[in-house]
Amino acid sequence: MATQLTLTALPDIPLVEPGDDLATIILDAYARADLMPADGDVLVIAQKIISKAENRYAHLEAIEPCPAALALADRTRTDPRLAALILRESREVLRQRPGVIIVEHKLGYVHANAGIDRSNIVSDDEHDPRVLLLPADPDASARGLRDTLRKRCRVDIAVIINDSAGRAWRNGVIGFAIGCAGIEPLRDMIGQPDMFGRALERTQIAVADELAAAGSLLMGQASEATPVVLARGVRFSASDVGTAPLIRARHEDLFR
Amino acid sequence: MATQLTLTALPDIPLVEPGDDLATIILDAYARADLMPADGDVLVIAQKIISKAENRYAHLEAIEPCPAALALADRTRTDPRLAALILRESREVLRQRPGVIIVEHKLGYVHANAGIDRSNIVSDDEHDPRVLLLPADPDASARGLRDTLRKRCRVDIAVIINDSAGRAWRNGVIGFAIGCAGIEPLRDMIGQPDMFGRALERTQIAVADELAAAGSLLMGQASEATPVVLARGVRFSASDVGTAPLIRARHEDLFR
Repeated sequence: MATQLTLTALPDIPLVEPGDDLATIILDAYARADLMPADGDVLVIAQKIISKAENRYAHLEAIEPCPAALALADRTRTDPRLAALILRESREVLRQRPGVIIVEHKLGYVHANAGIDRSNIVSDDEHDPRVLLLPADPDASARGLRDTLRKRCRVDIAVIINDSAGRAWRNGVIGFAIGCAGIEPLRDMIGQPDMFGRALERTQIAVADELAAAGSLLMGQASEATPVVLARGVRFSASDVGTAPLIRARHEDLFR
Repeated sequence: MATQLTLTALPDIPLVEPGDDLATIILDAYARADLMPADGDVLVIAQKIISKAENRYAHLEAIEPCPAALALADRTRTDPRLAALILRESREVLRQRPGVIIVEHKLGYVHANAGIDRSNIVSDDEHDPRVLLLPADPDASARGLRDTLRKRCRVDIAVIINDSAGRAWRNGVIGFAIGCAGIEPLRDMIGQPDMFGRALERTQIAVADELAAAGSLLMGQASEATPVVLARGVRFSASDVGTAPLIRARHEDLFR
């Protein structure tokens, strides 16, 4: 039989509000798709709904930009309050030019605007614009959701939280993993011989990022309608190491 | 009905030899999987079998390293003949250190060792080691295969040729597209309003790269057993622009 991997966008996920119980939302969506949660399932979940459930909104009106934020805003032609938030979420600004702020996020990854999202945010009040920050600890968010699903259904489901980001060298954004639980994010091929017996050079495959990219294909980009994608048939190792192994240490990075 | 994308590794692809007819090999594999080629199919094909069919082997014994190659080999502790080949395949060496040579390939993408592969190569003769170069023009390879499949089956199949590569900032390799035909590699979201009517900032999704990464999940890394993955259920636009739009122009790249 042919090896197969299926990706299913769980249907009709409602708009997520702060405090919503994502486990219930996801199990309801499984039911709507006529599917039962099963061991080995991998859920790829858009960062946006995790952030919303965790109420990671920041109100721009409440922010008093510091001088560094004002200078950054001036150089990049950004709202000074947004620049202040970006600085607050980051370890360091790596590149800046008009319209572009690329930072090393507090969580370690390189991301434009510190991953702060201005789209798809309902602003009830025109005078109080809100933006959405990344989850405070996406690996913990993934772990929490995985644990809840395990308790309720007695199945072992891996969780990947993805976001879209630009890359060096190439145009276009792709999905990548900002949090995971229950899956080893790198598949280690070190020392495994190839088909003809020669030892391979060191190679690790970023399976969590490949799954995040695959899930992104079904998510669209601006749509909130399909923020949860179920992947079945994935070969992976269980682990609760999270996404830390995916992040290249700064001193090992030749392009930072 | 839930939106679904299925990835099927076409089974029992034989080892590919120079001159082999990949269209026949692929159509035979469709039949073994009890599948019929259909409009909208996307085939993700490992670079390695394209290169083999196109006889992109290079014999190290035949290479006389120039002084620049000898210096590069010395600084990176690389076989001088391999260093010479890497230089020949590249526009520029971007980074070098012992064990690492990262170049801008003649074809435009940034790649370690110019994508030259030493694994999975049958060396009939110990004294004549061979390596495998990337296809000379992967977009043309993809177009040729697509055209042949269209002629033989009267179906419109998109083709993506993928390879695995390391990235800035993150550990692990992922699949990316080095050639494509019949698919717009970037899905353009510029100006499309989000769900709440606000115009999105400029965003393009690198769907060909996301598909290349998804296909890579089923390919393994050192295995030649599943070099062709059929993706069904993909939403994409038809185009014969190839992969050029995926490559960021050097002067627009903040990380080169």
